[in-house]
Amino acid sequence: MSAIDLNSDLGESYGAWKMGDDAAMLAIVSSANIACGFHAGDPLGIRKTVEAAANCGVAIGAHVSYPDRVGFGRRDMDLTPAELAADVIYQIGALQGLATAAGTRVTYVKPHGALYNRIANDPKQGQAVIDGIKAVDANLILMGLAGAPILEQARASGLNVVAEAFADRAYTPAGHLVSRREAGAVLHDTNLIGQRMLRLAREGTLEAIDGSVIRIDAQSICVHGDSPGAVAIAQAVRKTLEADGIDVRAFLRP
Amino acid sequence: MSAIDLNSDLGESYGAWKMGDDAAMLAIVSSANIACGFHAGDPLGIRKTVEAAANCGVAIGAHVSYPDRVGFGRRDMDLTPAELAADVIYQIGALQGLATAAGTRVTYVKPHGALYNRIANDPKQGQAVIDGIKAVDANLILMGLAGAPILEQARASGLNVVAEAFADRAYTPAGHLVSRREAGAVLHDTNLIGQRMLRLAREGTLEAIDGSVIRIDAQSICVHGDSPGAVAIAQAVRKTLEADGIDVRAFLRP
Amino acid sequence: MSAIDLNSDLGESYGAWKMGDDAAMLAIVSSANIACGFHAGDPLGIRKTVEAAANCGVAIGAHVSYPDRVGFGRRDMDLTPAELAADVIYQIGALQGLATAAGTRVTYVKPHGALYNRIANDPKQGQAVIDGIKAVDANLILMGLAGAPILEQARASGLNVVAEAFADRAYTPAGHLVSRREAGAVLHDTNLIGQRMLRLAREGTLEAIDGSVIRIDAQSICVHGDSPGAVAIAQAVRKTLEADGIDVRAFLRP
Amino acid sequence: MSAIDLNSDLGESYGAWKMGDDAAMLAIVSSANIACGFHAGDPLGIRKTVEAAANCGVAIGAHVSYPDRVGFGRRDMDLTPAELAADVIYQIGALQGLATAAGTRVTYVKPHGALYNRIANDPKQGQAVIDGIKAVDANLILMGLAGAPILEQARASGLNVVAEAFADRAYTPAGHLVSRREAGAVLHDTNLIGQRMLRLAREGTLEAIDGSVIRIDAQSICVHGDSPGAVAIAQAVRKTLEADGIDVRAFLRP
Repeated sequence: MSAIDLNSDLGESYGAWKMGDDAAMLAIVSSANIACGFHAGDPLGIRKTVEAAANCGVAIGAHVSYPDRVGFGRRDMDLTPAELAADVIYQIGALQGLATAAGTRVTYVKPHGALYNRIANDPKQGQAVIDGIKAVDANLILMGLAGAPILEQARASGLNVVAEAFADRAYTPAGHLVSRREAGAVLHDTNLIGQRMLRLAREGTLEAIDGSVIRIDAQSICVHGDSPGAVAIAQAVRKTLEADGIDVRAFLRP
Repeated sequence: MSAIDLNSDLGESYGAWKMGDDAAMLAIVSSANIACGFHAGDPLGIRKTVEAAANCGVAIGAHVSYPDRVGFGRRDMDLTPAELAADVIYQIGALQGLATAAGTRVTYVKPHGALYNRIANDPKQGQAVIDGIKAVDANLILMGLAGAPILEQARASGLNVVAEAFADRAYTPAGHLVSRREAGAVLHDTNLIGQRMLRLAREGTLEAIDGSVIRIDAQSICVHGDSPGAVAIAQAVRKTLEADGIDVRAFLRP
Repeated sequence: MSAIDLNSDLGESYGAWKMGDDAAMLAIVSSANIACGFHAGDPLGIRKTVEAAANCGVAIGAHVSYPDRVGFGRRDMDLTPAELAADVIYQIGALQGLATAAGTRVTYVKPHGALYNRIANDPKQGQAVIDGIKAVDANLILMGLAGAPILEQARASGLNVVAEAFADRAYTPAGHLVSRREAGAVLHDTNLIGQRMLRLAREGTLEAIDGSVIRIDAQSICVHGDSPGAVAIAQAVRKTLEADGIDVRAFLRP
Repeated sequence: MSAIDLNSDLGESYGAWKMGDDAAMLAIVSSANIACGFHAGDPLGIRKTVEAAANCGVAIGAHVSYPDRVGFGRRDMDLTPAELAADVIYQIGALQGLATAAGTRVTYVKPHGALYNRIANDPKQGQAVIDGIKAVDANLILMGLAGAPILEQARASGLNVVAEAFADRAYTPAGHLVSRREAGAVLHDTNLIGQRMLRLAREGTLEAIDGSVIRIDAQSICVHGDSPGAVAIAQAVRKTLEADGIDVRAFLRP
């Protein structure tokens, strides 16, 4: 692989409350997962982030969520498929409106937080997300967890998909993320993270938490936008990749 | 005039709460002002109304509002122009998403409640609404109060506009709506209302509350969706117009 | 038993949206489960319902919910115990404020919807609700599903509890509610419902859906406020009880 | 005067979003205006702030607001008196619940943001706030802008009041705050601010922006919690006062 995408969660401020350093991250990543107002983001704040992303030539994804602002979309919710599909369409549409206003467009969809985790393995809610995306624009790409069943489900439904790996997370020998509740789940060493992501891009492999080598097929690397050290980690990943001749650029919409 | 538009506020249910009789009104009107989630409407409910409107061949307008669900968008709010423009874009975009999912599209924008009244005469907030509309789709038509300065302001800004009259409201000799706080402001006699709207469509005139005849230049007639008797009034207006050879049909998007 | 309580869910309007017939139900029931703003109820609407309940001499309970207005509190949510306990305290406190303003007080707490069902059998969320109640007022009574483990859990934690049966629901031979998804789960025959509740009050028994007789130990009967026919069912239950010499009155706060 | 109160706006985080440094401010001020969930504050976050305030022996005030989270309560809204009074009661009650859970109580009410400014001179909304406070607890003290008509109005209605001055704001010769839109409206020199507040506490006077000396009768000094340098300013004020023998302590509830 001579190129890979770097994505980050952005536009997560809300009214008077600020979160993350969108300007700094937009100078590093190639794809921005932008909040759509359900877990974070007010219209004016989203608009500014969309405009900044457009100015930086960064691809724009709809970071759709459960309707749970006070819980930041991190709490599992039992929506019906009909509710969930409509919520997905509404959020994508709203972001498309703001993207159009900024002279750009939405190219992909990445579910956020609890919804992201839920649909990785819940085909019912997963199908609702897929149906919502297809209803509003069948050319939108679904970004999901490398190795998760949702990717195959979406592909079978006719969507293009992009698999992502997480730069600052440890993996089990089976290729799953180590739970945040376990020791060593989150990596902080920027140098190590850079080297891991270089190996991922070059060889499609990662060292799991037990030292074994696992295969991870990912076209994008997620560098979180809201954690301390996020900018430093993102910079380290980008520099390490580019120093080895790997371009950082957004995956293409078909 | 051999044709005129009938519009009504629809999609104003919210979750478990129902409001108005969308199905009945969609069989009568030619244009549906559909709530976008800020004063009313949840994504699934809006989606159903958009689909029903599409099935009935009724034109779809974005009924954009201040962000005030508990106040149903009826309370004046001091938004900055930047906040208001972004709120307008967000709402239009969300409705466009749901319209696209239903195989149809949004053709016009009608501000709701307190925002409607405010921009009629407040050029600052009015311009924010105009700017928001133009940013997302310059072909959208702005529907506003017949005779209000906002219409000329929007036209001067390059938007197409449609002026509307209110079927069940009394007018002052100067052509303004009689305040709801005054006696006689709201009409209930379906027969009288039908005759008044026929005259409006035929001659462009109405009898004001003092008996004088005033000129009202309107391309659309608003029949409210949420008042008791709304369906009966809408039916009376439509029947009276059609009995006299006037078609009820949506104004055309250029 | 010579007396039993009748309770109903009230105060579930929200802003411009109306739900249920609070005035009619307050003339029938002895206890009002009043929405606290998280699934339904705006402050002014809640205030009016609290005042009406006080005027009718009806006991006031806090109908606390997950923070999910668009889902009417009917969707399961994974709140942390700390979040849930704080949500419970906030809602009880808000209702206490409005009760104080009406010259009355809150005497019990009944969790709503998905939270009610969840804590019936989830000791972790159940304990969070118990802890929240005790933190704000240890004399508040918890109303819960007759036969559910939450009642014993609350009792063991030092709370007084009241068990309730549902007037319009069928029961399994094991004493559980028949799922709404199954045929015959909801009863509509007001006469039959009245007779069943009389037997419950007299003998503490009900006929289960298979014809067997089961023991249900309940000090309160829930008559839903928002279903069609709710008022008629509530009236039938009250009349049948009173005709047989059973008083309808609120359980006492210790 | 040998003692004066220092107050600050706290508890203004919301879910995942943080605002201000509550812990640092609670070590300096004697009164905490705590958000009640309408402009800021989620139940769990408010609870933590209330507990921290109780641990520091800091008095707790209800920082009640218009229902406008996305606008942080900074946008004027046209609520009816009935809506506003109920909103005030609801917020005070919710905070009282959380205060009771923390073993403490609410002693005063300070309206926030746009509501604070509006009622300073709008007797209609002002009376609604006064009525709401009295309905829930007539012993609560209203904190308001020194010199504003609302204070006299509240006193005439039977409420105890506390007047406050702003540490970091310039005053007009007439004793009003210089608008933030004008140059010099906000002071940043911690030394100067400390000296000004010492003079205020000692003599009840301040130097206005034109150099004239004005009389300001204030029993409390507001040091903002959310501006950069807020902690440093608060510390400077407290140190300067104490170095001159003036105690910083909360005003007493009658």
